[in-house]
Amino acid sequence: MTVTCRQIHLAARPVGEPKPSDFKLAEVELPEPGEGEVLVRNRWMSVDPYMRGRMNDTQSYVPSFQIDQPLQGGAIGEVVACADGSLEVGQPVLHMHGWREYALIPAGQAQPVDADAAPPQAYLGVLGMPGLTAYVGITDIAALKDGETVFVSGAAGAVGSVAGQIAKARGCTVIGSAGSPEKVAFVRDELGFDAAFDYHDGPAEQLAEAAPDGVDVYFDNVGGEHLEAAIGAMRDFGRIAMCGAISLYNATEIPPGPRNIVMAIPKRLTLKGFIISDHFDRMPDFVRDVGGWLRDGKIRYRETVVEGLDNAPDAFIGLLRGENIGKMLVKL
Amino acid sequence: MTVTCRQIHLAARPVGEPKPSDFKLAEVELPEPGEGEVLVRNRWMSVDPYMRGRMNDTQSYVPSFQIDQPLQGGAIGEVVACADGSLEVGQPVLHMHGWREYALIPAGQAQPVDADAAPPQAYLGVLGMPGLTAYVGITDIAALKDGETVFVSGAAGAVGSVAGQIAKARGCTVIGSAGSPEKVAFVRDELGFDAAFDYHDGPAEQLAEAAPDGVDVYFDNVGGEHLEAAIGAMRDFGRIAMCGAISLYNATEIPPGPRNIVMAIPKRLTLKGFIISDHFDRMPDFVRDVGGWLRDGKIRYRETVVEGLDNAPDAFIGLLRGENIGKMLVKL
Repeated sequence: MTVTCRQIHLAARPVGEPKPSDFKLAEVELPEPGEGEVLVRNRWMSVDPYMRGRMNDTQSYVPSFQIDQPLQGGAIGEVVACADGSLEVGQPVLHMHGWREYALIPAGQAQPVDADAAPPQAYLGVLGMPGLTAYVGITDIAALKDGETVFVSGAAGAVGSVAGQIAKARGCTVIGSAGSPEKVAFVRDELGFDAAFDYHDGPAEQLAEAAPDGVDVYFDNVGGEHLEAAIGAMRDFGRIAMCGAISLYNATEIPPGPRNIVMAIPKRLTLKGFIISDHFDRMPDFVRDVGGWLRDGKIRYRETVVEGLDNAPDAFIGLLRGENIGKMLVKL
Repeated sequence: MTVTCRQIHLAARPVGEPKPSDFKLAEVELPEPGEGEVLVRNRWMSVDPYMRGRMNDTQSYVPSFQIDQPLQGGAIGEVVACADGSLEVGQPVLHMHGWREYALIPAGQAQPVDADAAPPQAYLGVLGMPGLTAYVGITDIAALKDGETVFVSGAAGAVGSVAGQIAKARGCTVIGSAGSPEKVAFVRDELGFDAAFDYHDGPAEQLAEAAPDGVDVYFDNVGGEHLEAAIGAMRDFGRIAMCGAISLYNATEIPPGPRNIVMAIPKRLTLKGFIISDHFDRMPDFVRDVGGWLRDGKIRYRETVVEGLDNAPDAFIGLLRGENIGKMLVKL
């Protein structure tokens, strides 16, 4: 017995903003799982900003996606069949073979998740890679101390929303930037940030107003103008966790770097880039801390859900346009 | 009995490159040292790039110089008179009241130096603040590991020459940039760097050629185009010690920042600014290590000496133009 699997391939490498024609729906027939394999019916798939870089033909920390091959990314599904019985049929699992309705993969690549602790798709967001990214970035990379003043860009997104709330849970004053009045309200009223602003009105001026005494930590999801604004606002011995630069991912011309980078010397700043795959050893601490804050209601989350595999490219394009509040997910 | 002291005052805040008319020679009469005071006949004074920032009227980590007041900076002299006898007449001392022929200062601000271990002016260079800056920057801020590949800009200068030689003494491959063929030859042939190039021919291309496999550490004395070139050449997990940015000190327009700063994320780079006054606790280790390498001939140094207080402004202007090889000093 075989299953018909619909999946999204990369049709062309996007130039600038991805277009629907850069993606292609394909169908393949999958055989029954062979030795050591598991067949998973995917129910949720993640679209994440880092995927944009993988669509370019440049060497980076993860291999490029290949033309006419399926895209990849985090996904949650249920086990349909497992050759050696190591995973029960119906078990929810997390794996990296998203952008398709079924995944036929080595059983060792399917990680069981506890669906009693949280809805399974939370393992693609607050309890998954974005949440861990926020936790490691704010805790380890920025070396946050309780009570400091923190600025988070992309504060309504999957990573920024968690980073800011972790800081709030640790008694910090937290300022967020986001890309619409609706997002600003979400960040301030629902997530409990001390202040939030719409960056379209100029990040430097608004950050200076929200944090007149400066900030100790900046968690950067946006890059560009935001990074320059943050450097200008940093207090002495401030730390910048460089997590992402979504403002640049679709850029076709390289914008100028932060003109005030030299201020890192008199202010004794540290700027530190990181990628989450270096830090998977922090998973147990992350689950303990963020899981606990989630149970206590100190961390909240929201999801923006797009229905159907056919709409996955639009979900991804919309993510880069900032159309999501919280984690952008595709329900399959 | 009083002494007549000639000294250099700040006449005007420089705009762009300092001009001779920004400085003024003045004469004051100094009384005999009062209680707790010492009178020093200065023999050597230091001109350092950081002094340019102090000539601006901007808040920074050291107070601005004041118009019509004497400039300040490191100096070496001999005790002429000491009210309480805590310092012997003739004792060489280091203090921060340069730019003048005599200093009348609290005895506690005059630090005796060991003139048997090295010529006294070495305590303004290789064994002084520039040497300590190099040591802390390469050892602590850049967290150098033995055997790594290191790039040092301003490699013929007082700080860069020591930073690179420390890295050489620790078994590293060291590449230096400097501003003239003569300096390049000095860096390569006399200091023993593995490679050196004239940055006027383009730092990015030449760095890529000298270090085809990239660099682990960049010690930045120059900023601007050099910083961008280094970010482009950094290996994964590379560290950048941001010590100075002499290319910007006379700038009247803010040049663009490093366009490739976003590469700090996939490369997991750390950029860290520092100022040496935070690190005076490292002095004993510095004296032990760099003093030892100096005795063993593993660290060499050169001085560019300008004669006479009247020429101190020209020495400073020339320093910012890169007219020195090694430490720029004024002999009084």
